[in-house]
Amino acid sequence: MQTDIGILPLKMEGQRLLLVDQRLLPGSLEYFDATAFDDLCFGIKAMVVRGAPSIGVTAAFGLALEAARQANLSVGAAEFMAAMQRSAKVLNATRPTAVNLRWGIERIMGVLERALKERSTQEAASLAFDDAQRILEEHIESNRAIGEYGNKLIPDPCRIMTHCNAGSLAACGWGTALGVIRSAHFAGKAISVFVDETRPRNQGANLTMYELTEDKIPATLVCDNMSGHIMLTKNIDCVVVGADRIALNGDTANKIGTYNLAVVANYHKVPFYIAAPISTFDATIADGSHIPIEERDEIEVVQQAGQTITVPGARAYNPAFDVTPSSLITAIITDRGVLRPPYTKSIAAALADNFAMTEIK
Amino acid sequence: MQTDIGILPLKMEGQRLLLVDQRLLPGSLEYFDATAFDDLCFGIKAMVVRGAPSIGVTAAFGLALEAARQANLSVGAAEFMAAMQRSAKVLNATRPTAVNLRWGIERIMGVLERALKERSTQEAASLAFDDAQRILEEHIESNRAIGEYGNKLIPDPCRIMTHCNAGSLAACGWGTALGVIRSAHFAGKAISVFVDETRPRNQGANLTMYELTEDKIPATLVCDNMSGHIMLTKNIDCVVVGADRIALNGDTANKIGTYNLAVVANYHKVPFYIAAPISTFDATIADGSHIPIEERDEIEVVQQAGQTITVPGARAYNPAFDVTPSSLITAIITDRGVLRPPYTKSIAAALADNFAMTEIK
Repeated sequence: MQTDIGILPLKMEGQRLLLVDQRLLPGSLEYFDATAFDDLCFGIKAMVVRGAPSIGVTAAFGLALEAARQANLSVGAAEFMAAMQRSAKVLNATRPTAVNLRWGIERIMGVLERALKERSTQEAASLAFDDAQRILEEHIESNRAIGEYGNKLIPDPCRIMTHCNAGSLAACGWGTALGVIRSAHFAGKAISVFVDETRPRNQGANLTMYELTEDKIPATLVCDNMSGHIMLTKNIDCVVVGADRIALNGDTANKIGTYNLAVVANYHKVPFYIAAPISTFDATIADGSHIPIEERDEIEVVQQAGQTITVPGARAYNPAFDVTPSSLITAIITDRGVLRPPYTKSIAAALADNFAMTEIK
Repeated sequence: MQTDIGILPLKMEGQRLLLVDQRLLPGSLEYFDATAFDDLCFGIKAMVVRGAPSIGVTAAFGLALEAARQANLSVGAAEFMAAMQRSAKVLNATRPTAVNLRWGIERIMGVLERALKERSTQEAASLAFDDAQRILEEHIESNRAIGEYGNKLIPDPCRIMTHCNAGSLAACGWGTALGVIRSAHFAGKAISVFVDETRPRNQGANLTMYELTEDKIPATLVCDNMSGHIMLTKNIDCVVVGADRIALNGDTANKIGTYNLAVVANYHKVPFYIAAPISTFDATIADGSHIPIEERDEIEVVQQAGQTITVPGARAYNPAFDVTPSSLITAIITDRGVLRPPYTKSIAAALADNFAMTEIK
């Protein structure tokens, strides 16, 4: 059993917040300094760091650093919180779809608010930083739980398809979808993975292939349009992907292409699993129609590897996410157990319960 | 009504067979000399020319040129035919999936065989060349018929999705899928097209976007994994694609990704049309399970625009085609009318009849 949690997407060096620049992988492993608030916002927007849970953890650290800066300006509590609320708003607007960003921000803002009732702004900022550390540790722990719960669903041998990257880099720990895959692999099961390249930003080719190769898990890169043919000809046992936001009925936003993969899996009666921590659930929305879908620059579609692949002036459409309806999802693997339909019931139970549970029926 | 048939994928200059090098479009329009037999085979294998009908026409011209060469060697009829059969075999092996290649070869070989009963090898070669010319003219005509028949299925306005390139470059004329789109556009309908980039070789981005832009038909480039989200949010009226081989029950081999698109269209109840000339039907196979699927070099998946997008040594899988079962196909638009289910019946009728028909029910 391997205990190495994989490559974390961020690290603190003293008061500096350093992000693995995921845009440069697998070619080179470089860190991007996101200590300054503007750099933090740029880093999230430009996808230096990506993956819903990793964005949430990064936001927590970034906001804690911002709190320390504001506290050092020696302003009063009211002015301090007003400044922090402005920063939180800017940060929250960097990427609209993943709910973990809002979750990380709200958690730090809550710590500040509660602390300021009886402590100084400096002390509040320090508590915020402690909480960011705790959030990181919780993610590492929750990823492990997802891996353990998910492993029980994986037969031996197993051929798995996945989309985008839901590994250590995305989930800040053992991984969510890749956490399940890694847990099954290190439990000794014969796992092999077909990895969607995940156009337009190729997180499957760049990051998932990288993480699987590091762990020596057999992996085959494929184009996103091949899944039907692969399910017909390669005996795929299941699909496991991550999530950027899950509504109370189980509708799940994830990287563009997830929905197609779910429709194709459904057509072939291949089980389709979502793996995500509890922080990915949005308790404020009843279904997926309320999830805002980020549209990114057309250039990401018009280019491949920095080169234009079409006619000059071509128009393109670039939704970064899609929503998979819960009817296509076989189960949702969380750090609190495996949720099954009917999801309105199992999700409500998981969100209500503060204790880990084995399996919610 | 525009009468320009678009850019043909090949031309004869005296005794030279020149192919538009489709690998270089839309960046530059250059011709590849496929006069020598080895160059012809390379040109088809390396996809200098691609698209099932265009491959068939190219093979016909190439084989006619080969016949002229063999005839000039002053061998006897038996030796001539033996040499031609060897060449035909080599040519037929260049790409396994598209049946039009075999169709074009068999047609020219038939002309030679019949001619040799009462004529010289030189005269037979000359008749073969005349027939290649006739095949080209027939394709131009049959593409037009496909366009006219298909246009009747297209509402006004209409938002269409297409995959790969089934235009002038692929179909040697007005186009098959793009023929339908062009006919509808030039009939004055408000057409707009969402074009799958079509990884790994990007024929949608490179060629279809090029042809649509030349004709000023509104076109939007998208990634292959976006179709579900687009059907949900952009009110797509239908999908139209080409075909590389159609079995007697309507199962259709076409560019990899077509099957996914058909499954997704079916899930959204969006009509899914195949457009192809009669030469794309394979009367020797009952269903799609008999269609050989070409697997191409892993490097096409591992690279984008000539650059490696994944870890060194990564494995990839690269099936060039997939088979869409007839149950997912709303209608097949041919040069002999629109074929509807049950396809075993309508296809048999279309293949039996030597006359054009309006619509086969």
